[in-house]
Amino acid sequence: MLADELRQLAIVLVRTRNPLNIGAVARAMQNFGVRDLRLVAPYEASFREARSGVGASAVLGDAREFPSVAEAVADCRLVIGTTAARRRELEQPLVALEQVSTPIRAALTQGRVALLFGSEKHGLRREDLEHCHWLVRIATEDAQPSMNLGQAVAVCLWELARETAAPAAQGEARAASGELERLGALLMELLEAGGYTHPETATSSESEVRRMLRRLQVTDADVHLVMGMVRKLLWKMRSGGVDGR
Amino acid sequence: MLADELRQLAIVLVRTRNPLNIGAVARAMQNFGVRDLRLVAPYEASFREARSGVGASAVLGDAREFPSVAEAVADCRLVIGTTAARRRELEQPLVALEQVSTPIRAALTQGRVALLFGSEKHGLRREDLEHCHWLVRIATEDAQPSMNLGQAVAVCLWELARETAAPAAQGEARAASGELERLGALLMELLEAGGYTHPETATSSESEVRRMLRRLQVTDADVHLVMGMVRKLLWKMRSGGVDGR
Repeated sequence: MLADELRQLAIVLVRTRNPLNIGAVARAMQNFGVRDLRLVAPYEASFREARSGVGASAVLGDAREFPSVAEAVADCRLVIGTTAARRRELEQPLVALEQVSTPIRAALTQGRVALLFGSEKHGLRREDLEHCHWLVRIATEDAQPSMNLGQAVAVCLWELARETAAPAAQGEARAASGELERLGALLMELLEAGGYTHPETATSSESEVRRMLRRLQVTDADVHLVMGMVRKLLWKMRSGGVDGR
Repeated sequence: MLADELRQLAIVLVRTRNPLNIGAVARAMQNFGVRDLRLVAPYEASFREARSGVGASAVLGDAREFPSVAEAVADCRLVIGTTAARRRELEQPLVALEQVSTPIRAALTQGRVALLFGSEKHGLRREDLEHCHWLVRIATEDAQPSMNLGQAVAVCLWELARETAAPAAQGEARAASGELERLGALLMELLEAGGYTHPETATSSESEVRRMLRRLQVTDADVHLVMGMVRKLLWKMRSGGVDGR
């Protein structure tokens, strides 16, 4: 009854503090047949405590820890952040939860998808969001918009698992995040060599490039093609004696 | 956005043990604009503890206690029990959660509706179920069917509150074709200047670039950003004395 595709879904918890929340997330995952739990820089004691808790689940036992969001989502073709914000200065498209189920399920037929949840107190940070193709919002009351972490995960998983018409896969698979990072790094090299970026603006340009690559629906073939172009341009620029200032 | 009708919904917790669960239920209710919490024979200490907890909500403050299910649902026109069971010796119709939203919302326009949740350990008892018109089941994995109480309430409230209307278009509008052509032409200039394309391959590279720009979901902002980059690279390449071969 539940979609086999949910096995391809990774739940990524970023800087989670409360061990009870980690346990609650793992339980909701087991309820809905989702197995892949990843923790980015969790508070050490929390993760240890959650893992050693009574009835700690298989999901918790297999959970993996990553030092950064980039590493945690490297093998994922679609990365979706969650936010309680109705409107921030967001670069990524903000989509209502009830609208993402179909495209996420389609993407799950093609490869791994990551769903990111930020810390209980601060949510996802701007630099976490840069790795996201979209942001999803659970519509809640203005008076109390922020959901408990375990409940937010349960609601998202329910929305993905609930019976709807079968989604058809759309177009080609997106490139994995690790590939996008490699492409982004090479583009930054070119932009630096071409004098587009300067040391003082490099960080904001890098963010801009990263966000753009996620907004565009870049496939493996696109990565391959553009990398070939960028390498050639870099080579030409360097061999042409351009000094890169 | 959220239905006003949800004000007519009562959440009824029957013999709940864990004060954290009572708190979590109250939080989910506040998230989704549901105000009416009723407790049937809660463990005294739990209810006291939940109520006096840090950040105890308005919902908890206004919660009412009843000695029996019968008294708790006396003013409700529709009473729905929740169960993890796929099949018991049930007298009541067992309905999947995704199927009850429409009839419940219809009933809410006419009067009070009660949604019952049993104790963490045993769920609703047979005599509780007798007060129910239907039973609703959240489809979960057979290996771990039983949900955490706070998460089950959150999922049910989400299902009732979620927008059922057709999804709107996602994200920003794509750039107009004319803009893509301008961008493509400038990219081709750069690729020629960088020696990526040669006269005999220019046509096929141009087709490749054109197809890629349509495949990617390029917006006006992307066109603007990339054009700025390409112009700078072109300028640098030309002023650097690269001969374009």
